[in-house]
Amino acid sequence: MSDPVHVLGIAGSLRKGSLNRALLRAAIKRAPAGMTLSAFDLDEVPLYNGDVEAAGDPPGVAALKQAIAAADGVLFVTPEYNHGVPGVMKNAVDWASRPARAAPLGGKPVGIIGASPGQVGTARGQSQLRQAFEFTNSFCLPQPEILVFRAHEKFDAAGELTDEKTVEYLVKYLEALRDWVLRFK
Amino acid sequence: MSDPVHVLGIAGSLRKGSLNRALLRAAIKRAPAGMTLSAFDLDEVPLYNGDVEAAGDPPGVAALKQAIAAADGVLFVTPEYNHGVPGVMKNAVDWASRPARAAPLGGKPVGIIGASPGQVGTARGQSQLRQAFEFTNSFCLPQPEILVFRAHEKFDAAGELTDEKTVEYLVKYLEALRDWVLRFK
Amino acid sequence: MSDPVHVLGIAGSLRKGSLNRALLRAAIKRAPAGMTLSAFDLDEVPLYNGDVEAAGDPPGVAALKQAIAAADGVLFVTPEYNHGVPGVMKNAVDWASRPARAAPLGGKPVGIIGASPGQVGTARGQSQLRQAFEFTNSFCLPQPEILVFRAHEKFDAAGELTDEKTVEYLVKYLEALRDWVLRFK
Amino acid sequence: MSDPVHVLGIAGSLRKGSLNRALLRAAIKRAPAGMTLSAFDLDEVPLYNGDVEAAGDPPGVAALKQAIAAADGVLFVTPEYNHGVPGVMKNAVDWASRPARAAPLGGKPVGIIGASPGQVGTARGQSQLRQAFEFTNSFCLPQPEILVFRAHEKFDAAGELTDEKTVEYLVKYLEALRDWVLRFK
Repeated sequence: MSDPVHVLGIAGSLRKGSLNRALLRAAIKRAPAGMTLSAFDLDEVPLYNGDVEAAGDPPGVAALKQAIAAADGVLFVTPEYNHGVPGVMKNAVDWASRPARAAPLGGKPVGIIGASPGQVGTARGQSQLRQAFEFTNSFCLPQPEILVFRAHEKFDAAGELTDEKTVEYLVKYLEALRDWVLRFK
Repeated sequence: MSDPVHVLGIAGSLRKGSLNRALLRAAIKRAPAGMTLSAFDLDEVPLYNGDVEAAGDPPGVAALKQAIAAADGVLFVTPEYNHGVPGVMKNAVDWASRPARAAPLGGKPVGIIGASPGQVGTARGQSQLRQAFEFTNSFCLPQPEILVFRAHEKFDAAGELTDEKTVEYLVKYLEALRDWVLRFK
Repeated sequence: MSDPVHVLGIAGSLRKGSLNRALLRAAIKRAPAGMTLSAFDLDEVPLYNGDVEAAGDPPGVAALKQAIAAADGVLFVTPEYNHGVPGVMKNAVDWASRPARAAPLGGKPVGIIGASPGQVGTARGQSQLRQAFEFTNSFCLPQPEILVFRAHEKFDAAGELTDEKTVEYLVKYLEALRDWVLRFK
Repeated sequence: MSDPVHVLGIAGSLRKGSLNRALLRAAIKRAPAGMTLSAFDLDEVPLYNGDVEAAGDPPGVAALKQAIAAADGVLFVTPEYNHGVPGVMKNAVDWASRPARAAPLGGKPVGIIGASPGQVGTARGQSQLRQAFEFTNSFCLPQPEILVFRAHEKFDAAGELTDEKTVEYLVKYLEALRDWVLRFK
């Protein structure tokens, strides 16, 4: 029996009550056999600044890079703002794509899921985020997709995912992600 | 004779020596007759956080929104990171797209230009940024395009744009942007 | 009182029972005061081939270009296939974008709507199609958006749009498109 | 020693003198050890039509699907038209993505390269094409990238790739694609 793969989960929102943070928590609870999943919080990751980077990564950035480097794969849980990936999420990827030839995201298997109150369920945000992984040379699981639309109706007041269909999709997604990560180990 | 239109320029980088900041400065110097152009600096705009927003826009955000609201149009000068729009630039748009029905970017004519050291000259970053303007209901000038590729060869050590062809394109672009902004006034 | 604006509608599907053809018919029925809307059928537009073009546009292509040139604006009604704009729709745009400096789509106001059986309602297909209009220098109405999701539930067996909410959105969209086209006249 | 992997090459242009057809021929000549590469021509693949499909795939489509199914991987050689993937290329993908749960492209490793006379070298066309592979569940090699810009200067009158730098990149790309295909065998 092999060791479980370890996946790092990153939600692209800083709001405490974020639906995407709640979706990541729901995923952590349902991590399948053979996979561990833990959250990295973006609160301490500042806006990317090449001058700051040249002087040395700030502690939050160093922690982000270390956590990605230590993981077998990364799960991005992204909102969609303005038909695209939020600045908060893209900013984390911008830091983790550096330095160019030795970036923690390079050669790493990754997945993307997301939740939004609207009908589209972050489809456009996810597509933009995938484009970043072309450049970072990360291997992004193509299918299945998790587009949690009308997400505010699918979590209870405590932030628990209560929609059974979504739970079912999520479990299948996590199993597919585990197998995807294993493929590259 | 009508008053000149006022355009706000925003460069999507925090690095002092940024090629895109230099490109914006070059544009300001060459603002055509009938148009004024001034820079808004993103240094004081923090990462978007819905909880912070709910408590009241931070001063840097309030200043950004006010500057956009006061302008007749906005010129976004964007780098490309990881095949897309940088988090720093998208984050500014995310703030300026709020609140949903009365956002300063709503109904505003905008333009996009950009510079990068690579061959693509920010083509993918520009395309992603345009997608945001679908949602904010901003009117984005489609042509001409300014893709300053191999940009590090086109500015001197003092950050002055020295490539004559690029200057020529830039002047034509600014005239087209002025006419575009006038169309919506 | 000014003459009504004339808008050409193009559905991006060749299937007789296409939901997008049905959506275009529904739009034609509801063209608002001050605007006429008629359909151009893509059945006779072959795949783009530069050698064929060099020998002279085939009749279906010549008809397409003439119809676009004669219209004040164009409404694209697009399915979404494989997270993007269908080849059938993009192919029509590829023809109509030629020749480069005198293309019928150049300087033309356009709109995009779409219908799909899935949850996303062609959001990604629409975003890709908009990218084409950057190049053709067409002026694409950013808002409102019409994403007819679960579209198979919104038309009856005869292809009539029966969902009242969608009809309401469609009417508002067509009024906005009329005003958008007028703005550029 | 294992058998060589077989990759099918598809150029997204119907023009005889197409730069992308020439690029595919150049790739075929330089197929590395352990990989065979042959071209499938899109001349006989008609525009996608769901009614035609329901009556049975036309011979050109059946041949396309069979060739993809028989290959270990697919190399798409794409032009960029109007900031996106050409209708001709997307149309081939639309056919090959069907039927939904048993498509020949499903679970297939793929690569994308492209050539254009302009400066961007098909960067935007390639990004759009990648989006399709999210849906078809094809595994798209993220790096390296081949963006052959100013391509008309890199081939001779006979359509031979003469630019040494491009040849060098192409050889590295093909080796990476071979290894990528092997990974999924």
